[in-house]
Amino acid sequence: MQFLLEVVDILTNYIRKTFDRSTKVLDFHHPHQLLEGIEGFNLELSDQPESLEQILVDCRDTLKYGVRTGHPRFFNQLSSGLDIIGLAGEWLTSTANTNMFTYEIAPVFVLMEQLTLKKMREIVGWPGGEGDGIFSPGGAISNMYSVMVARYKYYPEVKTKGMSAAPRLILFTSEHSHYSIKKAGAALGFGVENVILLKCDERGRVIPADLEAKIIDAKQKGYVPLFVNATAGSTVYGAFDPINEIADLCEKYNMWLHVDGAWGGGLLMSRKHRHKLSGIERANSVTWNPHKMMGVPLQCSAILVREKGLLQGCNQMCAGYLFQPDKQYDVTYDTGDKAIQCGRHVDIFKFWLMWKAKGTSGFEQHINKCLELSEYLYTKIKNREGYEMVAPKIKAMMMESGTTMVGYQPQGDKVNFFRMVVSNPAATKSDIDFLIEEIERLGQDL
Amino acid sequence: MQFLLEVVDILTNYIRKTFDRSTKVLDFHHPHQLLEGIEGFNLELSDQPESLEQILVDCRDTLKYGVRTGHPRFFNQLSSGLDIIGLAGEWLTSTANTNMFTYEIAPVFVLMEQLTLKKMREIVGWPGGEGDGIFSPGGAISNMYSVMVARYKYYPEVKTKGMSAAPRLILFTSEHSHYSIKKAGAALGFGVENVILLKCDERGRVIPADLEAKIIDAKQKGYVPLFVNATAGSTVYGAFDPINEIADLCEKYNMWLHVDGAWGGGLLMSRKHRHKLSGIERANSVTWNPHKMMGVPLQCSAILVREKGLLQGCNQMCAGYLFQPDKQYDVTYDTGDKAIQCGRHVDIFKFWLMWKAKGTSGFEQHINKCLELSEYLYTKIKNREGYEMVAPKIKAMMMESGTTMVGYQPQGDKVNFFRMVVSNPAATKSDIDFLIEEIERLGQDL
Repeated sequence: MQFLLEVVDILTNYIRKTFDRSTKVLDFHHPHQLLEGIEGFNLELSDQPESLEQILVDCRDTLKYGVRTGHPRFFNQLSSGLDIIGLAGEWLTSTANTNMFTYEIAPVFVLMEQLTLKKMREIVGWPGGEGDGIFSPGGAISNMYSVMVARYKYYPEVKTKGMSAAPRLILFTSEHSHYSIKKAGAALGFGVENVILLKCDERGRVIPADLEAKIIDAKQKGYVPLFVNATAGSTVYGAFDPINEIADLCEKYNMWLHVDGAWGGGLLMSRKHRHKLSGIERANSVTWNPHKMMGVPLQCSAILVREKGLLQGCNQMCAGYLFQPDKQYDVTYDTGDKAIQCGRHVDIFKFWLMWKAKGTSGFEQHINKCLELSEYLYTKIKNREGYEMVAPKIKAMMMESGTTMVGYQPQGDKVNFFRMVVSNPAATKSDIDFLIEEIERLGQDL
Repeated sequence: MQFLLEVVDILTNYIRKTFDRSTKVLDFHHPHQLLEGIEGFNLELSDQPESLEQILVDCRDTLKYGVRTGHPRFFNQLSSGLDIIGLAGEWLTSTANTNMFTYEIAPVFVLMEQLTLKKMREIVGWPGGEGDGIFSPGGAISNMYSVMVARYKYYPEVKTKGMSAAPRLILFTSEHSHYSIKKAGAALGFGVENVILLKCDERGRVIPADLEAKIIDAKQKGYVPLFVNATAGSTVYGAFDPINEIADLCEKYNMWLHVDGAWGGGLLMSRKHRHKLSGIERANSVTWNPHKMMGVPLQCSAILVREKGLLQGCNQMCAGYLFQPDKQYDVTYDTGDKAIQCGRHVDIFKFWLMWKAKGTSGFEQHINKCLELSEYLYTKIKNREGYEMVAPKIKAMMMESGTTMVGYQPQGDKVNFFRMVVSNPAATKSDIDFLIEEIERLGQDL
């Protein structure tokens, strides 16, 4: 126990320094440098045990050479920040060290998940919060669930007979959508060429007329349009597809509508900004990652399904050793047979605890603040262009200097540009100012 | 930070009590009781924030009504125990709060994963530890990877064209194997009826002659036998399939051999017991969950693949915003495009840290101790039979009294019986004695 408290001491020092802007975001080293062992930090495993003193040193070194994702000037990923309540929740979760598959083994967490999913469905706008859902290991898996459930709804026989029991099924998603829809298409046996990419307008939103044209084209070829993914908050532009217009087409052509709100779902918590997802209540399923814009520690992603029973029907295998029907409690609370996993990590508690501590209103304030900061950034830089050509070089210098971190990439016919993510609760206007100045400072040396 | 330290205080008290045998394993309540709110424990979420004092009370209540999976008398699941080094590792992981997809964002953890996977492959017996692998969210997903990779190896065109590009593909697994092979068959588009169950002998091991007969039968029908799963440590009996004989058939019929060592993989660490997995070095892929017999906190599961490049080939979608080819470091260290996930939780650190602290030899001792305890249990009860008919009733009374916890289920033509799991590092012979006495004591009242 003394050892554990010494680790806590290391961790609390780390956290204090993370929130201190004079600390570097990272202390960059190349893979070969770390593998060679910097200042005695030896990553290799050996036959004999190390002393507890050495283990403490290993913990310090692990943090020293890592990236401070909670630093106010870390803007590199959609998930960032370090919420202390959420962190405490995660420490409790790992201490409880249990598994979500049955009520038997996780009574409190299973109920928390159920209540929280219901609350999320209410916020989506489904009457009475009815429906189903599960927390999954990330948005890509949540999106995969949506495709599985859609297929099960329209072609349940695929579960027993395989894809050959169905006609050629087509999935639609925007050219700016997350690559997980394509991954799901590959994994689940649809094939990537049956995932049709839709054109976007200049702001990165799907053009509904293009969707309808492609639906008609697929039908003319004898294929069956099954599923449309509308993105609410695209990965690069943060664009919101027009859900209502897409929902109209899904109704017209009898297709499943999924909304990937992994990034943008958080806006549903804000009365001011939730109109961007207007129409989401018409979706058949929704992905929503509290670990992104809502600042919950990794991992925390929900798949919500409007129709009850599909998740269970799609995935259940009725394993006798886990899901005994003759248990002494109400076994409808057991969640394991809804999942593609068997064991499932407890992702709910940190989120539930943060919700308790902030209230719905606290999440609303956080979301509003993120959108204000991005508006501030937009206003500041809209008249300053010209450095996009050298983004990779600036990024490399930024990582070496360790002062701030932001991602870059090309998109379509645009060459490399910086992708600014505002979700870090610790970030203020001064950090936005710092980022702009730092990019310009580093760019001057080129 | 004061708040965080108060939570640590709650957690350390909880841990002390967990290791005290006079503490109940659980304080059982039915779902409706917890939902109604026992002694003011309110699970509902609300608009307004709660005070930090109330949050601390919530944390205490969450632990109070949960199950102590680390208790020396908890034998209910394949994962049990509470390793303090592993726990410290998990606390550090959640403090670092990062993501495994790129070296950029998790340099140290990505390298630890790479080195640990290599070590595991060496222990499996692949020359030089060559090959590939990834940590995944549990054994079911690891097994799913094995099926995906096998399909990609033999029918790479399925990735682009879907399952219709392949003939009817057959997967084989034992009737005692984990249900995740069937789940994978359903999810990936093979269909459950193309997952053929193999007969087992009286000790729960696959009968190779039955496998060969079923391969021949499938071929005669014009189907293509693709994949055999051999279980190393079955979920209920702990049986080990004869890997060498199965490997002979896989070679003869040109099939992929997967070994599901989710439970039994830990035996590879023991020079005394690893012969039970003899032939595993001939497998094309292996699932091995350190979070089971090796006592690593949940979740920690590895899929190992003998041939390099298949995981990446199978899953990569080359997302421009994450996997920029023009980064300043060696991007072959980025792992994200091997995964079906995008974001991926850091599961490696707690395992790496435990390995550092115990050494390979420490894991060996732990495994040897688990097998000694189960041998002890077997010797003690082999002459005491007769209570299997009432297992559910005894289990219900056991949960109400909260003194110990063990699972039960039927299997094949056997009615309900207790499934004893010995993986808890805190358990001793006296706890085994206690369990037997407790089952008999509870049974007397029936």
